[in-house]
Amino acid sequence: MIIVGELINASRKIVAEAIEKQDVATIQTIAKDQHENGADYIDVNAGVFVGKEPQYLQWLTETVQTTLEAPCCIDSPDPTAIEAALSVHKGTPMINSISLEKDRYEALLPIVAGTDFKVVALCMSDKGMPQTTAERMEIANELVNNLVKNNVPVENIYVDPLVQPISTNDTFGVEFLNSIESIIKTFPGIHTVCGLSNISFGLPERKFLNQTFMVMAIAKGLNGAIVNPLDQKMMANIIAAEALAGNDEWCSAYLEAYRAQKFEF
Amino acid sequence: MIIVGELINASRKIVAEAIEKQDVATIQTIAKDQHENGADYIDVNAGVFVGKEPQYLQWLTETVQTTLEAPCCIDSPDPTAIEAALSVHKGTPMINSISLEKDRYEALLPIVAGTDFKVVALCMSDKGMPQTTAERMEIANELVNNLVKNNVPVENIYVDPLVQPISTNDTFGVEFLNSIESIIKTFPGIHTVCGLSNISFGLPERKFLNQTFMVMAIAKGLNGAIVNPLDQKMMANIIAAEALAGNDEWCSAYLEAYRAQKFEF
Repeated sequence: MIIVGELINASRKIVAEAIEKQDVATIQTIAKDQHENGADYIDVNAGVFVGKEPQYLQWLTETVQTTLEAPCCIDSPDPTAIEAALSVHKGTPMINSISLEKDRYEALLPIVAGTDFKVVALCMSDKGMPQTTAERMEIANELVNNLVKNNVPVENIYVDPLVQPISTNDTFGVEFLNSIESIIKTFPGIHTVCGLSNISFGLPERKFLNQTFMVMAIAKGLNGAIVNPLDQKMMANIIAAEALAGNDEWCSAYLEAYRAQKFEF
Repeated sequence: MIIVGELINASRKIVAEAIEKQDVATIQTIAKDQHENGADYIDVNAGVFVGKEPQYLQWLTETVQTTLEAPCCIDSPDPTAIEAALSVHKGTPMINSISLEKDRYEALLPIVAGTDFKVVALCMSDKGMPQTTAERMEIANELVNNLVKNNVPVENIYVDPLVQPISTNDTFGVEFLNSIESIIKTFPGIHTVCGLSNISFGLPERKFLNQTFMVMAIAKGLNGAIVNPLDQKMMANIIAAEALAGNDEWCSAYLEAYRAQKFEF
């Protein structure tokens, strides 16, 4: 399971303020905390700063990697901002994200084509958000095939089927879960990834629903998650589900996490 | 999701003592508590009383149904004990369980053939416990086809693929989960059921692992569970997973459970 730590996002007040003050220590602390708690990639997002996004995304990338030998997940739809971040990034980044929306697709494809970058492929097109498994598969088929044709190896593609709230439609959960299964079966070696807090929008006990849905998605084959690695209950759920799904040899990661006493089982 | 309340089992000290004292009140309280907390069937088991099992199983069945309009899950491999319980049972019982073990199969088949009973079909044969999905499917295929041939409708069959501990073999969880999916696909309309506390044998934080595995099994299509309905955390997991799996129209059962404030979300 690939964990992308989601906390360095300028939509969070603490991060926006740190960016404006160019407060290196705060950003580095958030990065290190996430890495120590299991993040494989550190997401960096400066999307709220219109006009300054390239400069700030580059600064975030540099600031994170000065303190940490971990790759970033460069989170922007803007090719200029991504290029700015890439100019200082060390190692193999994840690009978050390309989609089938025409403008975004055409802007991002030249950046990822022929590289060894990890690429998040969002199941979104100009027709809007997909609702059913079939609609997601239609987008995934076109997007993945195009990426592969443009020399992005299938094993570097992380399809995000896009979670939508069950409070809007009670089939939205199962349609998403079936998409995970279908994507994995259709493209052997591919990855799936998602941020899933939308699932619980409009319902009470959102954290509990998010954790439960994460476990269900892992049962269906999800192998990447954009989450808060400092959420010890969520991480406990992921670690337990991984052991139960047969992804943890000798249950050793589970036992190690138990002994470390930092997760809430 | 069909919930079978597991607490009236003579392997529990409180139940064994109540049976020996013919303590009606204790048994009826346990039955009512389970029913009020979501049990559709009340499991009755007097297996530890060799020689007296028929008499005691009959007494348990009568005692439960004097206070409760709910069917029992008659839990015994002994045809004499089952017949004794059936002679007093009102409504449609669940029989727990037939298997492909020759003696058990031949003893139980005449009891269930041509009836409208719900029948738990255990994936067990004289070759021992199955380990892989394929081994489970081999048993399930033969057992289900035989039951259907003997006029047990497929929708009354509850296949239990048999959980085995991941501490013994880290693939035992995923093999079980894939069996659930495979059974449902192979026999449209069939049910699956299991008691799953074995999954966590030999590992720390067993309750947490059991809850997590229950959620994963629901994601794969499990629609029956033999559990303790008084375990509010387990029931919260089941209710949330059912809503997320699209089995809860308008999320109304989830919202009702939340408002009732008796579950631990």
